[in-house]
Amino acid sequence: MDHVITGGAGFIAVNLARSLLARGDRLVLLDDLSRGHPAYVEALRPLGPVAFHKVDVADENALGAAMAGVSPEAHVWHLCANSDIPAGVEDPAVDLHDTFMTTYALLRVMRKRGMRRLHFASTSAVYGDHGVHALHEEAKTEPISNYGAMKLASEALIRAAAEAHLDIATVFRFPNVIGTPATHGVLIDFIRKLAATPGDLAVLGNGTQKKSYLHVAELVEAMLFITAHGAGGYRVFNIGPADTGITVREIAEAVRYHVSPGARLHFGTADRGWVGDVPRFVYAIDKLRALGWSPRLSSHEAITRAIAEIAAAERTAHGANPGGTSP
Amino acid sequence: MDHVITGGAGFIAVNLARSLLARGDRLVLLDDLSRGHPAYVEALRPLGPVAFHKVDVADENALGAAMAGVSPEAHVWHLCANSDIPAGVEDPAVDLHDTFMTTYALLRVMRKRGMRRLHFASTSAVYGDHGVHALHEEAKTEPISNYGAMKLASEALIRAAAEAHLDIATVFRFPNVIGTPATHGVLIDFIRKLAATPGDLAVLGNGTQKKSYLHVAELVEAMLFITAHGAGGYRVFNIGPADTGITVREIAEAVRYHVSPGARLHFGTADRGWVGDVPRFVYAIDKLRALGWSPRLSSHEAITRAIAEIAAAERTAHGANPGGTSP
Repeated sequence: MDHVITGGAGFIAVNLARSLLARGDRLVLLDDLSRGHPAYVEALRPLGPVAFHKVDVADENALGAAMAGVSPEAHVWHLCANSDIPAGVEDPAVDLHDTFMTTYALLRVMRKRGMRRLHFASTSAVYGDHGVHALHEEAKTEPISNYGAMKLASEALIRAAAEAHLDIATVFRFPNVIGTPATHGVLIDFIRKLAATPGDLAVLGNGTQKKSYLHVAELVEAMLFITAHGAGGYRVFNIGPADTGITVREIAEAVRYHVSPGARLHFGTADRGWVGDVPRFVYAIDKLRALGWSPRLSSHEAITRAIAEIAAAERTAHGANPGGTSP
Repeated sequence: MDHVITGGAGFIAVNLARSLLARGDRLVLLDDLSRGHPAYVEALRPLGPVAFHKVDVADENALGAAMAGVSPEAHVWHLCANSDIPAGVEDPAVDLHDTFMTTYALLRVMRKRGMRRLHFASTSAVYGDHGVHALHEEAKTEPISNYGAMKLASEALIRAAAEAHLDIATVFRFPNVIGTPATHGVLIDFIRKLAATPGDLAVLGNGTQKKSYLHVAELVEAMLFITAHGAGGYRVFNIGPADTGITVREIAEAVRYHVSPGARLHFGTADRGWVGDVPRFVYAIDKLRALGWSPRLSSHEAITRAIAEIAAAERTAHGANPGGTSP
């Protein structure tokens, strides 16, 4: 089977690609390399047939050219997006271009080429701040960040396209996803801070923000399970751990334990890390369970596993000097 | 008080403007005149202070220049949008530009200028097709047309902006709105068809599509009531009649009765007029009632009143020859 993955040189794409190649599928990876890395793509090549195109997915003509040889039967996994949430709060231009306009251009190219199978990486951020109320797929969507807004806007376009020209449109809404190769996020942020100053770790916010974390291995497993089970049409699934999450303080303590046990933790006073940050949420995955898939890792277990993986990768990257910077 | 109205030369804006001028407010109307008419603006001038700028609201620089003299305290009514739903199903470019990018540019200009009061004309189309289930404001939003998708996308941006830089953000979701000056829609379509061929009226779809219709006079009254009652922040209100709507067949019969009693009606076979059309919906206005405002007209009464108003306007426009075309 053929697959196109946008954001194909990024964190989640590389993990998805590995699973698809393992079952013998062929991949076309598209990425503008603004956040993804060519080295991630090169590492995939021994595993199976991988074509790569450096392309701005929001550029309809360039995207059309990059997808010219792709079978109309291919599954398209739309993973490219801005992933820097605070940056998008300050200026929505990056979310507009990297998240929304990529979706817009992709749908136009797919329609033109008669491609009818789309899977989209959405986010728990589309819900906004529901406090203690569980976020199920029927809950109202009132995103409080431009990141969440442009993801919801993309979902809306895909829903309309499902009415007009898609046969399969799957929307995955996931919380924070962790693992390797880590490109950004709280774990690599903490690990790198401690590598630079092993005695101290400053945490954004007061540490009480509580969130669900999903390991990328489970995310990929769930995405493939969902797409393998279902009759097509437009479907939305939350993917997440079964628990109510882990606090930023607990994450900081876990990183300290693994990386620099003697470090002091310093917390801020705000109950959220930045404007548009959802301080805590309860994620409902009943729909996914009913389909037949359940997560095995808790948020805490996912965090612990990812810390070990990221710390090992950082040590490899920096040789014998764990506190060193890249040459 | 000062007000900015985008889409200021359009159908709803003109009616809103009349009410605002009647209470002594000052208006700045912005419109690219792609659908609005300069004559509508001219008709407002005797009623009070009206400034008009022909501007593409999606053009951030041009918009900034047009709003340069406006008080930061002004209320902004964002009414401009694509209103041709079937056109947007075929090609989302017009909804992207006229609906979504106008919202995006407007929010950027408002932020830059410290303007913190926004009211947005959204639509029942953001909900999509919920069948017999009532559409209340907490219902999930899965639009099946690009028109609805770009309106929902705009709501999402406004919700995020309310978190970051707006004090007041009101979203009005309304169904079909009718009255004069009619620029498009089922009534003027039927009335003009009958003027051209008084003996026959062809109806898109099988006539069973059932929808809520709101008279523009009641819409404006409700919008002003909502903005006068409330503590600010982000608020979403359905505005509509109290009933479950009126079928296309009933509308066609009402137009025939008023315009050309002897005409034969011809129906299609589809249960909807076009892809992305929501064939029927039940609109919940409990939240608006709880705030203290209730509609007085049923969908049928609104239709009857609007037919008389539009037919009279068409007769005036075309002189003594009701079937004639404009010179």
